[in-house]
Amino acid sequence: MAEVKLHGTLLSPFVYRVIWALKLKGVPYEFVSEDLSNKSALLLKYNPVHKKIPVLVHGGKPVCESMVILQYIEETWPQNPSLMPNNPYDRAHARFWIKFAEDKGVAVWKMFRSTGQELQNTMKEALEMLQTVEEHGLGEKKFFNGDNIGLVDLAFGSIVYWLQVIEDAVGVKLFESHKFPRLHAWLENFKQVPIIEENLPNQDEMLVVFKRRREQLVASA
Amino acid sequence: MAEVKLHGTLLSPFVYRVIWALKLKGVPYEFVSEDLSNKSALLLKYNPVHKKIPVLVHGGKPVCESMVILQYIEETWPQNPSLMPNNPYDRAHARFWIKFAEDKGVAVWKMFRSTGQELQNTMKEALEMLQTVEEHGLGEKKFFNGDNIGLVDLAFGSIVYWLQVIEDAVGVKLFESHKFPRLHAWLENFKQVPIIEENLPNQDEMLVVFKRRREQLVASA
Repeated sequence: MAEVKLHGTLLSPFVYRVIWALKLKGVPYEFVSEDLSNKSALLLKYNPVHKKIPVLVHGGKPVCESMVILQYIEETWPQNPSLMPNNPYDRAHARFWIKFAEDKGVAVWKMFRSTGQELQNTMKEALEMLQTVEEHGLGEKKFFNGDNIGLVDLAFGSIVYWLQVIEDAVGVKLFESHKFPRLHAWLENFKQVPIIEENLPNQDEMLVVFKRRREQLVASA
Repeated sequence: MAEVKLHGTLLSPFVYRVIWALKLKGVPYEFVSEDLSNKSALLLKYNPVHKKIPVLVHGGKPVCESMVILQYIEETWPQNPSLMPNNPYDRAHARFWIKFAEDKGVAVWKMFRSTGQELQNTMKEALEMLQTVEEHGLGEKKFFNGDNIGLVDLAFGSIVYWLQVIEDAVGVKLFESHKFPRLHAWLENFKQVPIIEENLPNQDEMLVVFKRRREQLVASA
């Protein structure tokens, strides 16, 4: 098997999506830690367009953008568990929600960097994102695709699990269980998948790091 | 074969992506014209999340989001021409550029609605998008995937062909041939594909409509 390397930083939600997919597929890999304040020549070579992590390198060839990487992993190692539905219609449905997570999930990362009116605006966007998923995304299903975890769950898993820490770092609360019962039930199902449970960063430890980062961001704003 | 309907409006670049894909695959369809100032109950039922066109309805089941629709068309009617590469690595590369077109192409649509400083900002974004594609996207290839037209070409085709009209409607010029020789050569290749050539709206007629729309937008801003 060709060598697999994952370039990333600790605690990045986008990197965790890739870690989860590789672990679910049982693909061994080497983690290459990147310092984003001093990007390596290799990172700039592998991702000249965005200069961002994560980058998956398989047999020397780079793949960039977390959800593109996840689809690459699914197609390259299609063995169980399959992380996308079998038929084109259900796959289109999954891709619709992956795109939604990518487009609307941005509000959560913006919240982390915002204060004042901008914080109010990004909170409103994040709330609308959660409401749409609660209303249209899950129904009575255990996971987005049905009974088994898939790529859509990995996309939203990073958003919702990180949101809980970002809320505490910012000092606000959006994701209340009585407002989002389906999403809360889904998050419990997600965290109980053994591979996910074994590969979730500790939220208390995340909070220490995120609080410090936010203080720096707000001070330099 | 199950019935195919395409809900859209005339002159939408996102609808044209779907028209091109259906025509390239030889899939017969019925066009259902939507009035966006008075959205039909059917459109709201088919796309409750975004309430937007295009929507492809195949055998009564809706698929939303233009690039999700295009991947659905590719997987449902895989017969020649194939519009995505065969191997997972090249498919990841195609998906990287599809995502880039979706994320960065937004600048062109924002330009159409902007004036003053906001117009300057969106022009800068659009220019950076073009420069990145010129530098990293095409190389010496005829189309994004190589010798044959594919989904990435349909994604950028709508952006660049519409940009030419939006430039004239706004009264600015970004897409100059001496600055973007590769993209200009690619656009010529794109327009010479018979199915594309037969299914391109007339830019002079587009300009009349776009100028009027922009006057309304600017007057109501």
